[in-house]
Order: sequence, then C-alpha cells, then structure tokens
Amino acid sequence: MRNMIVASTSTIHGSGYLEYLLDDLVVVFKQENITELLFIPFARPGGVSHDDYTQKVHQALTRTQIKVTGLHKTENPAQAISSAQAIFTGGGNTFQLVKTLQQLELMEPLRKAIFNGTFYLGTSAGSNICGLNMRTTNDMPVVQPDSFKTTGVLGYNINPHYLDPIDGSTHMGETREQRIKEFHFYNTIPVIGLREGSYIRVQGDQEILCGPHTARVFLQNQKPYEVKNGYNFTQLI
Amino acid sequence: MRNMIVASTSTIHGSGYLEYLLDDLVVVFKQENITELLFIPFARPGGVSHDDYTQKVHQALTRTQIKVTGLHKTENPAQAISSAQAIFTGGGNTFQLVKTLQQLELMEPLRKAIFNGTFYLGTSAGSNICGLNMRTTNDMPVVQPDSFKTTGVLGYNINPHYLDPIDGSTHMGETREQRIKEFHFYNTIPVIGLREGSYIRVQGDQEILCGPHTARVFLQNQKPYEVKNGYNFTQLI
Repeated sequence: MRNMIVASTSTIHGSGYLEYLLDDLVVVFKQENITELLFIPFARPGGVSHDDYTQKVHQALTRTQIKVTGLHKTENPAQAISSAQAIFTGGGNTFQLVKTLQQLELMEPLRKAIFNGTFYLGTSAGSNICGLNMRTTNDMPVVQPDSFKTTGVLGYNINPHYLDPIDGSTHMGETREQRIKEFHFYNTIPVIGLREGSYIRVQGDQEILCGPHTARVFLQNQKPYEVKNGYNFTQLI
Repeated sequence: MRNMIVASTSTIHGSGYLEYLLDDLVVVFKQENITELLFIPFARPGGVSHDDYTQKVHQALTRTQIKVTGLHKTENPAQAISSAQAIFTGGGNTFQLVKTLQQLELMEPLRKAIFNGTFYLGTSAGSNICGLNMRTTNDMPVVQPDSFKTTGVLGYNINPHYLDPIDGSTHMGETREQRIKEFHFYNTIPVIGLREGSYIRVQGDQEILCGPHTARVFLQNQKPYEVKNGYNFTQLI
C-alpha cells in the first residue's frame, strides 16, 4: 500500500526548507514509527554536494529527531532503498536525478519500495520521478539520461512549480500551459499542474490534493480544468 | 564563410511573425541574390502541422517575394539542404526539432551547408541547434532525441528568450540564471543569454550582437556579465 507525499516544491516563499510540510511529516513519522530517513540527494540543486544537501535535510528535520542518511553514503544503494523506513528525494535538476538513478539501476528498487509501503516524500524533481516519465519537467537538460522513464508509481505526470500565465506579460516564450499542450501532442498521459504549496497525499488507492491551492488538470484533447483541495486524482486514470 | 542570423525569438511583443527581422532579411536576400528559402518546420510550435507552419513563413515573407519550400515536402531532405540558397529553422520545441533532424540524419548536412556559406536564419529552437548541444534550451522534453548534440556552427550555446529574474517574485522555481549555473556545473561551454529582440549576425569570423538589448554572457566559474550591441562573440572562444 503506497504511502506518499508528492509535493510541488520543498520550500514556499517566506518559509524555511520543508517547513510547510513539517507538521504532516511529524504525524506520518509517529504513525509509522519512522526513526530513520533515507535521503536521495542526486538532483543536486545548483550543483551542491551530496553531503551538503543531506546536511540541509538533517537540519530541516531536527525537530522530528529523525536520523537522516544520504543514499550516496550507503554501500549498497539498492539494498538501502529496499530496507529503508522512509525515503525522501529532494529537488534540483530532474535530468541529473534521473541519469544518476538509471546509472545506479535504482529506479526499479525505488518503485518496488514505494509499492511495498515504504513512506516516500518527493519535492519538485523528487515528485517528477513519481510520474510515468520526466517529459513534463521544467528543468534544463544539462545532462543526458539514457531514458526519460521514471518510477510510474503514479498513473500520470506531475508538473511541479506550476505557474499560471502572467497577466500583461510581453514575453513571447511559451507559457507552462502551452508547453504541456505540446506534451499532449506526443503523449496521452494526464498531467497535474501542482502549484507551490500543493501536494498529493497518497495512501493506498487514495491520491488526495492537499494545500491552499487548486490544481490544474491537463488531459489530451481536452480543455484544462481546476480541481479543489480534497480531489482524488485516481479518478483520472 | 558562415552567413547567419541567430535570433532569440521569431516574434517580439506587439509585432507580426518575423516582422522585426524583415528589413535585415530583405538586405541579405538582395545581396546574396536569394530567391528561394528552404524552411525547416520540425520544431512544430504547439503541434502545428508542417504545412501550416510553412504557410505562416510564406505569408510573413510575402514582401520579399521569396519562394518558401518546406523541408518536409522535399524528396531528398539532405540534398535539399546542401543545394539550398537559404535555410530557415523556425522555433517550437527543441527536443522535437533535434529528434527529427537526427532521425533524418540532417544535422551534419545542415552544419556543412552553413559552413559552405548558405545563408541560415534561426529563431528560438532554430538558434538552439546552432550551439554545441541543446542542453541550454528552455523547452519541455516532450519527446526524447537520441542525443542532445546539435550542429556546433557556433562555439558556444544560446539560451533564447533569455529572461531576467523578476523583482519581487515569490516563485521558488529556479531562475534562468540558476539553470544556466547548473549547466556549468556539468559543462564548460559558454552560454549567451539572448533577450527577445536580440540576434547574432554571423558573417565569416564575425559574430556580432544586434538589436536593442545587451546580452548576458555565462562562463563556467565566472560571474555572468553583460555585453553591448556590436560585441563580437568570437572573443569568447
């Protein structure tokens, strides 16, 4: 039974790293008797080191007294994933994250662990890899993974940090909505535009929208529409 | 001897398709006795058909009396590229453009034609493929090309539609500058942030910044800086 928090972002404006998710995490850690968290630092935001990124997570979770271990420090990463009490994949660059997970052959162990019920937290790039592929990332392709395929623990793709078109903008580059429309020219997979502060709470077959914003649902050949807090995304597939 | 216009965008705000480039194009077409243009429509903005996209270019260039042929209509595309009087690659999705050029084995013929002196106009995705690779595109990876390698007719990469950070923004997704910084964590290639309305006029070994804006130069491990209209980018490499 899946047990996940799939979040648009790690950080909302004016708040500390993971701060807006902390109350929920404390509840989950207590419910599930989680005392250790395995952190996947491979997305390396801004090129930060795996150690520094892991330390940042450790500091953000001080209140929870959880022990945080970076996956890069484990001897057998696949084994570490399958035996973890809880897993968190942080944001950064999705191309870099996917490339590293593929090189280390960790996509399948991660998928199995999540379906086996290991609690999973994803933010941004860490949420992109919950979808069927990474083709709706906003990130720059700074490195080239062998495949764009991801874990597929959700039956749709996420577009994290979803942005509405800016009123009165003179910029001629594509809006996020236009890019997702392009995606649907080549792909049939539903896409959830998840605004910063929103997250999907997955428990078994429930995939519930949480947080202060509506989410935008994009289906191939249909007009995008908004769904409210409490919506169950399993209806989409 | 290369003869190119490498533009950030096809269209500036409040103006028609290619309109801001038309005076320059008229001069080039006259100087070079160009009466026919080969159009590469593969980037397919918004999934538009190759025919419709080619028609759009035809309409935009009515004043020049140039005959526009879509590359998709030619029997032997590689031959069409090598015998073209002039080539224009339009914008859209760079992943889609690169995937199609690679499948048809056209990247090398295009490179050769440009180095042989065939006039080349690129806008947005059509400018991305002038760099060494497509790793600084802003586009969504809606399809997967075999390789991110492009023509390398310029010794650096372009970031088209370059956007400055927005003052007072509460959005937590990466700025364009942060993404290019990530690129430089994995790549040594210089990157030119080319604002909408800017273009590089390449003639032989001159690569001159034109248009109303400064451009932003990003070099690995250096602070980004601005260069003015008239700057010659060949100094960078």
